[in-house]
Amino acid sequence: MFILVNLKTYPCDPVAVAEAVRDVDESTDVARVAVAPQATHLERVAETGAETWAQHVDPIDYGSNTGHTLAETVADAGAVGTLINHSERRLKLADVDGAVEAADRAGLETVVCANNPAQIGAAAALEPDAVAVEPPELIGTGTPVSQADPEIVEGAVAAAANVDSDVSVLCGAGISTGDDVVAAGELGSEGVLLASGVAKADDPTAALSDLVDPL
Amino acid sequence: MFILVNLKTYPCDPVAVAEAVRDVDESTDVARVAVAPQATHLERVAETGAETWAQHVDPIDYGSNTGHTLAETVADAGAVGTLINHSERRLKLADVDGAVEAADRAGLETVVCANNPAQIGAAAALEPDAVAVEPPELIGTGTPVSQADPEIVEGAVAAAANVDSDVSVLCGAGISTGDDVVAAGELGSEGVLLASGVAKADDPTAALSDLVDPL
Amino acid sequence: MFILVNLKTYPCDPVAVAEAVRDVDESTDVARVAVAPQATHLERVAETGAETWAQHVDPIDYGSNTGHTLAETVADAGAVGTLINHSERRLKLADVDGAVEAADRAGLETVVCANNPAQIGAAAALEPDAVAVEPPELIGTGTPVSQADPEIVEGAVAAAANVDSDVSVLCGAGISTGDDVVAAGELGSEGVLLASGVAKADDPTAALSDLVDPL
Amino acid sequence: MFILVNLKTYPCDPVAVAEAVRDVDESTDVARVAVAPQATHLERVAETGAETWAQHVDPIDYGSNTGHTLAETVADAGAVGTLINHSERRLKLADVDGAVEAADRAGLETVVCANNPAQIGAAAALEPDAVAVEPPELIGTGTPVSQADPEIVEGAVAAAANVDSDVSVLCGAGISTGDDVVAAGELGSEGVLLASGVAKADDPTAALSDLVDPL
Repeated sequence: MFILVNLKTYPCDPVAVAEAVRDVDESTDVARVAVAPQATHLERVAETGAETWAQHVDPIDYGSNTGHTLAETVADAGAVGTLINHSERRLKLADVDGAVEAADRAGLETVVCANNPAQIGAAAALEPDAVAVEPPELIGTGTPVSQADPEIVEGAVAAAANVDSDVSVLCGAGISTGDDVVAAGELGSEGVLLASGVAKADDPTAALSDLVDPL
Repeated sequence: MFILVNLKTYPCDPVAVAEAVRDVDESTDVARVAVAPQATHLERVAETGAETWAQHVDPIDYGSNTGHTLAETVADAGAVGTLINHSERRLKLADVDGAVEAADRAGLETVVCANNPAQIGAAAALEPDAVAVEPPELIGTGTPVSQADPEIVEGAVAAAANVDSDVSVLCGAGISTGDDVVAAGELGSEGVLLASGVAKADDPTAALSDLVDPL
Repeated sequence: MFILVNLKTYPCDPVAVAEAVRDVDESTDVARVAVAPQATHLERVAETGAETWAQHVDPIDYGSNTGHTLAETVADAGAVGTLINHSERRLKLADVDGAVEAADRAGLETVVCANNPAQIGAAAALEPDAVAVEPPELIGTGTPVSQADPEIVEGAVAAAANVDSDVSVLCGAGISTGDDVVAAGELGSEGVLLASGVAKADDPTAALSDLVDPL
Repeated sequence: MFILVNLKTYPCDPVAVAEAVRDVDESTDVARVAVAPQATHLERVAETGAETWAQHVDPIDYGSNTGHTLAETVADAGAVGTLINHSERRLKLADVDGAVEAADRAGLETVVCANNPAQIGAAAALEPDAVAVEPPELIGTGTPVSQADPEIVEGAVAAAANVDSDVSVLCGAGISTGDDVVAAGELGSEGVLLASGVAKADDPTAALSDLVDPL
């Protein structure tokens, strides 16, 4: 299972979480664990040795793009992948396409987020490495999508497979325990997006270990 | 072939163009001809008897949506279909999905526009009635997409078929003659989007007749 | 006092409300009453003789603007004014400026909406005919801004006067009774924006008469 | 004069430019020179000792804001100020207001950009530390705004003074020589925004020295 810890703009210490991510990733063979800090923290987080992802890249190239996030800059900072179209950073359809292209050009792995199976099919058609289904209404609730809405995960897996069987499916929203991760896997998900459960934990290493333990 | 004349915000007489659309549509068995006026003109255009389409609907329901276009209002005005995500009115991926749903709810036929085959596949995954590929760089050039970039039309047809074989493919950009329409059909397109060639013609009926004639 | 009834995308009969607006407007010397229907309803509403406003215009000119609202089209349909930047249809700063210019060009009166006194000052600097302060958190609550947050109305009046003393100030959010309208006037407001209280009333004429009565 | 070098997403070495900015700033009493790198480069640039600015901050607080730029993060990275509403990163009016508030909260100095005197007045009403007028059509042309359109700079100075005399006015677009900077000052501008002229120079220190020399 791929476990991606999204730090959003939480008031956490990104380096401390990154070190926990790195340590748990190195301690297990059953999960690949990565962290997505804010753009400003990418370099420091990558220096920890943790697998580092961006939270967003813009559909742009080098040039006159004040205030935007360039895929090449993110990659040079040490990121190996990027989220695109997270529900907190939704993009126009043409810009999701452009952002996937920009990330590919910079050698970044891509996970395009979407709300439901129809949009997951659409996201898969843009040929990212993976898609992630996150029902917005469950984000931050503590109620895992795998329990509250298992059909949406299965539907997302089917929708992506119908369009492009090479695209992996992740899921997110409300996942906080290892059992949630196991349940997500049983529904066909190859990974999960996590946020507050780890980012806000007093002991991120313990929180991550608990998540990985039942795998 | 389906021929949809998009009046954009051109300074044309929408009723005169609509009457031409109606007359040519009634005079031929080989084409279905419709017109997409501005929202403010929908009622008057529909009253001509021409098949009337909206240029856009928003992903909303009845309620507190000042300044938005409600699918039900468009349908009540006499429209039978709507464009969604035209390159001049691009939407977020989640909102393309929401607009298709809103249009379905109101009984409107849907054509989702996109720029290239990858986005056409994405659009098709949202289950509209049709998708339309329009390379933005050719819009308004007079150089037909079927001639300038035939691969993009064939690619769009293949991309849509891969995702959902029930979704028709239209194409647009630069189409101004009957030969262009024929060429579009030969590439697998089931219709075309037209704009200035008819909307700005001195004699819209003659312009449309010329388009339909070689079919 | 200027009373503008915003029909949003409510499931009301726009012509029936417009007739009530017209009748109450004609029956009183102490208020000017107008109605802002959806773009698709502008022509039919204007035909009632009611003073008709648009809910939104785009910062565009005639041309290739599929799915946009052109100020000239709105004016030709019989509208005499337009809201701009309503909290349900917020625009970029440059586009508020462009929309005011477009409305001026088409001879439309302009009311630019904003959330707080600072933004009201900003809106006034763009030289609309009026600005309207509507705290988003009070919209639709039934708690009038004049009662819940009188300082915001007084602050808006002061902010607009500091920038351009020719710009009138309206207020909105939660206004449903004649006493609310009187209170708004006492705080320096020259008008009010109303919505559900009239649009959803069983008897819009009675609802409007009650509003005007205490003036 | 304040000289702010905006690195946009240019393919330059941000640290090398920052060192030039620092050195020239330290070598002169007549100018204050600062640099605005991409968010990902803020920490490394600030470590050079150069005065560091962000290119953008979002109107957000700590929390669930994936892919956004938090003012506090920017400040913690060593930035002392931020551009807001650059013409390449235009914001909604309410979000310009929110971004100024967010920057104030984090102790960042603020420069709100706008296209013309009317928008400069609007920007000034939001109480930033400064506003910057940059006619979009001149950006990147090499034709300085002070020469191509001196009225726009004088108009901006007057518009800002009318609203809030505490707000400084900068100008930008096409400035590449020391004479351009002098001319901007003579029109009432207290600083300039620069980009490619320094960021893409073979010798940024020489380019900056030439700019500062005639002051």
